Amino acid sequence: MAVIRWEEPPEGPVVVLLDQTRLPTEEVELVCTDAPALVEAIRSLAVRGAPLLGIAGAYGIALAAARGFDVDEAAAALASARPTAVNLSVGVRRAASAYRAALAKGGDTGAAAAAALVAARALHQQDAEASVRMAGHGLALLDELLPGGGHRILTHCNTGSLVSGGEGTAFAVALQAHRAGRLRRLWVDETRPLLQGARLTAYEAARSGMAYTLLTDNAAGSLFAAGEVDAVLIGADRIAADGSVANKVGSYPLAVLARYHHVPFIVVAPVTTVDPETPDGAAIEVEQRPGFEVTEVTAPQAPVTGAGGGIPVAPLGTQAYNPAFDVTPPDLVTAIVTEEGVVSPVTAEALAELCARSRQVTIS
Amino acid sequence: MAVIRWEEPPEGPVVVLLDQTRLPTEEVELVCTDAPALVEAIRSLAVRGAPLLGIAGAYGIALAAARGFDVDEAAAALASARPTAVNLSVGVRRAASAYRAALAKGGDTGAAAAAALVAARALHQQDAEASVRMAGHGLALLDELLPGGGHRILTHCNTGSLVSGGEGTAFAVALQAHRAGRLRRLWVDETRPLLQGARLTAYEAARSGMAYTLLTDNAAGSLFAAGEVDAVLIGADRIAADGSVANKVGSYPLAVLARYHHVPFIVVAPVTTVDPETPDGAAIEVEQRPGFEVTEVTAPQAPVTGAGGGIPVAPLGTQAYNPAFDVTPPDLVTAIVTEEGVVSPVTAEALAELCARSRQVTIS
Repeated sequence: MAVIRWEEPPEGPVVVLLDQTRLPTEEVELVCTDAPALVEAIRSLAVRGAPLLGIAGAYGIALAAARGFDVDEAAAALASARPTAVNLSVGVRRAASAYRAALAKGGDTGAAAAAALVAARALHQQDAEASVRMAGHGLALLDELLPGGGHRILTHCNTGSLVSGGEGTAFAVALQAHRAGRLRRLWVDETRPLLQGARLTAYEAARSGMAYTLLTDNAAGSLFAAGEVDAVLIGADRIAADGSVANKVGSYPLAVLARYHHVPFIVVAPVTTVDPETPDGAAIEVEQRPGFEVTEVTAPQAPVTGAGGGIPVAPLGTQAYNPAFDVTPPDLVTAIVTEEGVVSPVTAEALAELCARSRQVTIS
Repeated sequence: MAVIRWEEPPEGPVVVLLDQTRLPTEEVELVCTDAPALVEAIRSLAVRGAPLLGIAGAYGIALAAARGFDVDEAAAALASARPTAVNLSVGVRRAASAYRAALAKGGDTGAAAAAALVAARALHQQDAEASVRMAGHGLALLDELLPGGGHRILTHCNTGSLVSGGEGTAFAVALQAHRAGRLRRLWVDETRPLLQGARLTAYEAARSGMAYTLLTDNAAGSLFAAGEVDAVLIGADRIAADGSVANKVGSYPLAVLARYHHVPFIVVAPVTTVDPETPDGAAIEVEQRPGFEVTEVTAPQAPVTGAGGGIPVAPLGTQAYNPAFDVTPPDLVTAIVTEEGVVSPVTAEALAELCARSRQVTIS
């Protein structure tokens, strides 16, 4: 079942999504017939993960265009559905630019809609190819940092084929190590509050036949202390120009633990995740999500009794602090692995050079 | 409703416990008529928390003695019901010693059982008094380390009146600060996997009228990074002779974060938690609990569908790493607050001196 696909039934084009909130218990598809439906799917995390959000945003523009809705309005709504992942707005912009360029060249709205779809499909395909290259660069880096193989990798949140047009970012590197017979174990942080590690990464690891073990996020400290972690591999939702990395909440504590235990902390993300417009970590807007994600437990199959759609686990009226992401400063990041190569040490200059190289590749 | 009490109905003596697995949704009492029932209540965490486990163990011996069961057998079963908290075996030993001493002095089993109950009640009372003194010493330390008040305290797991004959350990300090008008906010870690923070600490904080906010354990990093934490206050299940502190899993990552951010990391525990027989952190046995606590979510009111009694959140067959505790080395601990005073810096010598002083007080 594809995580996202474009279909053109007789009733008109649709974007079909695998509803990730129902995994691993059920594989259910969501059919979006317009941009607002897709915005809702993004907000509810039915579709999620930085690279996939970019692809979803681009298809959303293609959908609005093909169905004759206002493309500018759809672009504004889609790009702001979630604030932290820069890929979302990049994807929206790319498809919307293709649409406008086609109109500017004298095409009709049908031709412009077709151009938006071509741009979305190209982004989808590019992301799949980027996965393959990130996996290769990432494994080469692991082998260099940790000679002898038998890697024990700790990961946080979900970064595999569920977030990508291909096999993902950090997870794709672990998968490559697994296929090469050099993964000893994947340690999977459960990733509270929404349990993307338990629900999604464990699901992907099990399907791939990897040796994996699930743990509560707070048990990672014990693994580090016991010398059971050789490297941390995570994805990213936005990388500022200075190399600060916004990623799922809980990434920063792992970076501090990794530093304290002299373990490499590696970020794997496509170049589109680097946002030259965001100067540093302080400039990254971190999405604050509803408190009920913490005060209630949501689980597949569970009957809904709380106001937020879950089972209450805290006293009524409990206020919660629930940032969706945190920011890791560049000095705690050993390396950033992209499809265009590895940046290490992480500096503003090295990142700027990488982005310039990537633009050249894209243009040529 | 008392967390633990001794009752003597016509059918024979019983130990009555508040079933902490049902909080905060329901206040239900568990009536234990023999030591095996109490062992099961300890294992299932119906009764929990280091100081309270000591009291429960002592009452368990009094119960076995009063009902004419084999006291040595009850002592062995109770002391090993959970391995990490040293208070449990200390409490068992104290009541069993009183029982044996009475027999040795020529008393009959009835007199010996009465002696065991006197010892259990004395421990219960001493723990209540120790709470008061820990709270006083702890607040004085906070005021010294953080002049000006307005303390923003981060805590992990549950350390209030639910774990104690009195108002608890770390929580009692926060409560004292609250009553003195010097608590700005209590940050409550939810404490996965069993959510003692969300279920129990939030419940106690709400009842006390404190300003508190609940967070996922992995969101603490963001609070530190934002400068929102003035001090970390936790309890302890065992303190080794070298000052290594075993406490609920997730404590050690907070200690590393606190060090990285130059925030005091303070352990509050009665002197009985210090175990001179355990030389260092490596010698502390850390209880490994069943994986289903991680692969399934248990919540009050939730229907049971998983093999472990919860709602599955990970693919079937997922293996989990689930240590109940972790160990923080003494160099990451700013201070240990006990009823006999504060140890800071934490060294083997200072701890040994404290224990010697405490024994003198107990003997005199």
